Amino acid sequence: MTLSVILCVTAVASEKTDENSAPIFLTEIPQGYRDFGLIAVSRLTRSDGSSQLRAELGNEIALKACREGKFPFPDGAIVAALHWNELSAPDNDKVLAKGFPGAGIQSFVPGSGVNMQFMVKDSKKYAATGGWGFGDFTNGKPGDMKLMNTCFACHVPAKDHDFVFTEYAP
Amino acid sequence: MTLSVILCVTAVASEKTDENSAPIFLTEIPQGYRDFGLIAVSRLTRSDGSSQLRAELGNEIALKACREGKFPFPDGAIVAALHWNELSAPDNDKVLAKGFPGAGIQSFVPGSGVNMQFMVKDSKKYAATGGWGFGDFTNGKPGDMKLMNTCFACHVPAKDHDFVFTEYAP
Repeated sequence: MTLSVILCVTAVASEKTDENSAPIFLTEIPQGYRDFGLIAVSRLTRSDGSSQLRAELGNEIALKACREGKFPFPDGAIVAALHWNELSAPDNDKVLAKGFPGAGIQSFVPGSGVNMQFMVKDSKKYAATGGWGFGDFTNGKPGDMKLMNTCFACHVPAKDHDFVFTEYAP
Repeated sequence: MTLSVILCVTAVASEKTDENSAPIFLTEIPQGYRDFGLIAVSRLTRSDGSSQLRAELGNEIALKACREGKFPFPDGAIVAALHWNELSAPDNDKVLAKGFPGAGIQSFVPGSGVNMQFMVKDSKKYAATGGWGFGDFTNGKPGDMKLMNTCFACHVPAKDHDFVFTEYAP
């Protein structure tokens, strides 16, 4: 069974380090995420016809755990999910039509960014949400709190994989 | 205009370092490619209904050139294109249906690998093919020579981008 990072749609609350019972969410985008290594890619469509291309990346700690299949992830692990609107690439298609006549190839590339989602492992700080701090950023800004509490609940089905849906692509 | 790595379907010939006029192709998969950073993701469909999820990765030299938009790529740059058959992920869809009722979300993840393609920059060694050594590997093995000569010709439309179609995803 291959699963993709979902990470739900989370929002970001101000951190409440003085309340152990309160979930804590990310308020800042983890530094260096764009240079993380690749865990997997994925795609998501909706019945409105929209399609997203997605990349799930991990820092060294997360990648090592994914490669070795050793869970739970150690503290310090960071998983990033970058989501773009899928864009048709007609210029590519013209080239491909010459190279592969009759194959009817259509290609798609990343268009505008939709949002970026993160999971940061700190088993003490984020004990209330499985040891993970969740974050969701659109145009660099954290979302509102409306959906923040749905995030961890959404990841519970991936409990055997330490709440991360994505599996390392072969 | 956003373009994706295409890299054509190339095959791999034995290297002919003694013949400057002969194109030279990769015979070995570049080491460490799976840990390269992300340039972009893409998707490719054919009229037979098949769909591929793709990731284009680069080593540090290639990533730096991509980020800065400085071309030609310096010698030592390596671009990797990993292609997987796209696989439906119904278990994900069940989770997403709960989180986003009525959105009709369908998700897709990497299935079996199709092939891996590489471009290695060495302006002297690969002078006959724009300074790039091309490679195409299926199940770890280089392909036959049948299509090897189509590779560079296919990349000529991307000449202004030093023969690499992929652009760095935002």
